[in-house]
Amino acid sequence: MAAAAPPPPPTPAPEPAMGPPEDSPVGHPMFARIRLATPSDVPHIHKMIHQMAVFERLTHLCSATENSLSSTLFSPTTKPFHSFTIFLLEVSPNPFTDSVITDPSFTPVVKVVHLDLPIDDPEKETFTTNAVNDVSVAGFVLFFPNYSTFLAKPGFYIEDLFVRDCFRRKGFGKMLLSTVAKQAVKMGYGRVEWVVLDWNVNAIKFYEEMGAKILHEWRVCRLTGDALEAYDSSNSSETYHCARSS
Amino acid sequence: MAAAAPPPPPTPAPEPAMGPPEDSPVGHPMFARIRLATPSDVPHIHKMIHQMAVFERLTHLCSATENSLSSTLFSPTTKPFHSFTIFLLEVSPNPFTDSVITDPSFTPVVKVVHLDLPIDDPEKETFTTNAVNDVSVAGFVLFFPNYSTFLAKPGFYIEDLFVRDCFRRKGFGKMLLSTVAKQAVKMGYGRVEWVVLDWNVNAIKFYEEMGAKILHEWRVCRLTGDALEAYDSSNSSETYHCARSS
Repeated sequence: MAAAAPPPPPTPAPEPAMGPPEDSPVGHPMFARIRLATPSDVPHIHKMIHQMAVFERLTHLCSATENSLSSTLFSPTTKPFHSFTIFLLEVSPNPFTDSVITDPSFTPVVKVVHLDLPIDDPEKETFTTNAVNDVSVAGFVLFFPNYSTFLAKPGFYIEDLFVRDCFRRKGFGKMLLSTVAKQAVKMGYGRVEWVVLDWNVNAIKFYEEMGAKILHEWRVCRLTGDALEAYDSSNSSETYHCARSS
Repeated sequence: MAAAAPPPPPTPAPEPAMGPPEDSPVGHPMFARIRLATPSDVPHIHKMIHQMAVFERLTHLCSATENSLSSTLFSPTTKPFHSFTIFLLEVSPNPFTDSVITDPSFTPVVKVVHLDLPIDDPEKETFTTNAVNDVSVAGFVLFFPNYSTFLAKPGFYIEDLFVRDCFRRKGFGKMLLSTVAKQAVKMGYGRVEWVVLDWNVNAIKFYEEMGAKILHEWRVCRLTGDALEAYDSSNSSETYHCARSS
């Protein structure tokens, strides 16, 4: 419900992208990796959630703390792909040498992109995950299973898709979304869904180019805050009656 | 994504509802119970999903079978309230005498409503769960956890809320939705969400009366069918490039 809009993806270039830097076109290679997040990533995730709230001008609605994220996203009941799941996007000017396979159900995805100029990341130190190899966090996607009774299949719902400001317009939003879609296909799931603000035409164009349909007739209903707390059973003396039927 | 619209709830009557029939106002008592569904309920659930598709004129999109529902809704990874969960609504002219506590995490909810006339259920035999005590299935709600990063809390997403035709306008939709909301509060969850068709003004009015806000600016995006299958990794030669950045 807080999906930040990645920009429209660039037109794919014809060059091969997976080769080592010496085989690639001129420019500055940037290695990008998507892996499952772990509890030690929570401080970075928390900072990005806050940046997303700033981007959406919704900081007054954002009460997440590192502790509350840790306890809810990495509890004993949260199994990747069967509960709340976070793919973390890391970037580095160097090839990745560390192993980050934290769960047998997902092998990290590595790509290389070629930039005219290296990216100047003003928050590099804040988002560093491996200083020796110059690896830092550039974005994330948080998703979890949903279910379609018509298909009788699970799917994935993407709650957040976020790429840090200086890494936008480089195809990373597409890389994150594609990785979720590929995982859905791999698991035999039927749908990937998310929401977008109706005025965010760039995001809508991007999503349509990714193959998504926008369901214009549906509206989200939300019961939260005091309206939800009113259903506290311990306070409730509610009874259910029917009107006189005929 | 297929939430059938329950009708607006009736105005609550002032009489107590929990007493035995002899203490209650004149009329025909109907006992209503909400319990967790089990694999043996799948045939009834399947029939109601089909009826929901007919109601929504979407039968061409409904490919669920009893087998596909069983294998996806009652797999080893589906734990009530932590994965796909179904509350089943049963009704009977008699008090419930059988024990249906199938999971320690939920105690069935029983209410009694008083009708001027008994309900004539043309499909009673099809939906009977306990012939001896005259118990039959009248509806269901299917929901599962979602997550808000801003709240750093799980919530529930209601995929389907359905009450069989002859049981509508008796407060059962409210009973089902309230039971989900109460469970969310009990678990310390932050939100209950679902979707509604924008032209379904009766449903919107009903949901607003239940305390829900309608989020008018958000649109659902869906990647499904061939557009999703296009992300099949085994067919993909996709590479990620960035445009020349500056």
